[in-house]
Amino acid sequence: MLPHECSINTATLGHKEPLKIVIDRVARHGFGGIAPWRRDLDGCDLSVVAKQIKDSGLEVSGLCRSEYIPSISEEHAKRAFEQNIRAIDQACVLGSACYILVVGGLPTGSKDLFAARSAVIDGIERLLEYSKSVGMPLAIEPLHPMYAADRSCVTTVGEALDICAILDPDGKKETLGVALDVYHIWWDWQLHANIEKAGKEDRILAFHICDWRVPTRDFLTDRGMMGEGVIDLETIRREIKKAGYLGLAEIEIFSEELWKEDPEVILQKCANQIKIAF
Amino acid sequence: MLPHECSINTATLGHKEPLKIVIDRVARHGFGGIAPWRRDLDGCDLSVVAKQIKDSGLEVSGLCRSEYIPSISEEHAKRAFEQNIRAIDQACVLGSACYILVVGGLPTGSKDLFAARSAVIDGIERLLEYSKSVGMPLAIEPLHPMYAADRSCVTTVGEALDICAILDPDGKKETLGVALDVYHIWWDWQLHANIEKAGKEDRILAFHICDWRVPTRDFLTDRGMMGEGVIDLETIRREIKKAGYLGLAEIEIFSEELWKEDPEVILQKCANQIKIAF
Repeated sequence: MLPHECSINTATLGHKEPLKIVIDRVARHGFGGIAPWRRDLDGCDLSVVAKQIKDSGLEVSGLCRSEYIPSISEEHAKRAFEQNIRAIDQACVLGSACYILVVGGLPTGSKDLFAARSAVIDGIERLLEYSKSVGMPLAIEPLHPMYAADRSCVTTVGEALDICAILDPDGKKETLGVALDVYHIWWDWQLHANIEKAGKEDRILAFHICDWRVPTRDFLTDRGMMGEGVIDLETIRREIKKAGYLGLAEIEIFSEELWKEDPEVILQKCANQIKIAF
Repeated sequence: MLPHECSINTATLGHKEPLKIVIDRVARHGFGGIAPWRRDLDGCDLSVVAKQIKDSGLEVSGLCRSEYIPSISEEHAKRAFEQNIRAIDQACVLGSACYILVVGGLPTGSKDLFAARSAVIDGIERLLEYSKSVGMPLAIEPLHPMYAADRSCVTTVGEALDICAILDPDGKKETLGVALDVYHIWWDWQLHANIEKAGKEDRILAFHICDWRVPTRDFLTDRGMMGEGVIDLETIRREIKKAGYLGLAEIEIFSEELWKEDPEVILQKCANQIKIAF
């Protein structure tokens, strides 16, 4: 795979520089897109950012990420909803392919994953009403089950597709779909069937890549560079492509080890590794 | 829940003392059973151990655990098979309720989870031929997906039940079934449906308990004491009981923090926590 087929999620560079500089770097290395986090946009003139990205020839593969939906109080839920609405507006200005929903896990004090899942369905339903009206696709990103308690009670592609079918039965990815991150989904015995299903239902909005290291030494910040781990990236990519996804592969690597490097070195490594790994 | 409804997996005490002493301690604290690891049996006269356990009024809720099945070479696979056969014999002498299969993940150098799963099915098929002949039930224990690479490519109850159906379609738990460990399965959106299914198919051979801490700080040795985490133990236990499992709840806690304590303190904590958590 070549850099122009990939986008760089800004977390891969560790959020150490202003977005303006990051956009320049990513474009100079020949990548096809960028995926900023909302924090990168703080204090920026959004239309200026959007213009810089466009003028650099970059696409926006996604805007990361939603506020968590299950909440300890109605007040908290209301604030999260408003922040998500504001972020959907930002995604529109940036011309993002989608707004990434990391739905949240158990609210503090709760052990009821089913209540959390129910809150997620209700919460996405409300967001969807707005996102449809402004034409911004929502991408539910199932996270690895090791994050079920604190980051996402939605843990498999199958579950995410079920939510799509419930909330948007006649829809397609123009409205509601899934973000497929290999790190979160590679272990799933039903993965290949569900990628196929996601394709048939036209729900694949994003494809995120990195690798799973053995051993993995940290729950959050020890992701591997593509090819450094055990994920069968080539097969998963082929299946996702066959399922009709023709967009960018977004490189999203949370890694304390990688973040020690200079951003130029990180981008060079990304460019090299995608050639080797795919 | 009361101690006599539970068994103690010897790993909970950190394997610091000879099995003979551990059996005594577990019985004195009023627990209903014990689940030794094969390493505990090294150098022991197995019939003496079996007699001591029986005389102490303890059941054996399981023998931990199988050698991994997917292998880098035929020679390695053969050795693992022979060790598993020997362990099945040991489980028989101990009168264990089952032999616990932790099936293994990817052999070194492989990225092919599907090949690993296929090797697992073939390997269990071979073991089953023997285990049936000696009357020792095999319990497939799906592990948490965070262990898919290095410990178990079987990660969900659904997958384990599918393997049972393939290899032993007319069977029941007397031959092949599943070990349900809350730590590994609590996050699964299909958990409740699959517990029900496991009950209908009469496949539940073991029920292991501990808790999931938030945050979890280590991939292997930061399990929580029942009630210390976010697992809805009460609901899961109720459903497993409703599904027809009437055996012991085996307390299996890998915890560096807990292992610092004296075994007497650990057992006291276990006895207290099950009263609080259930």
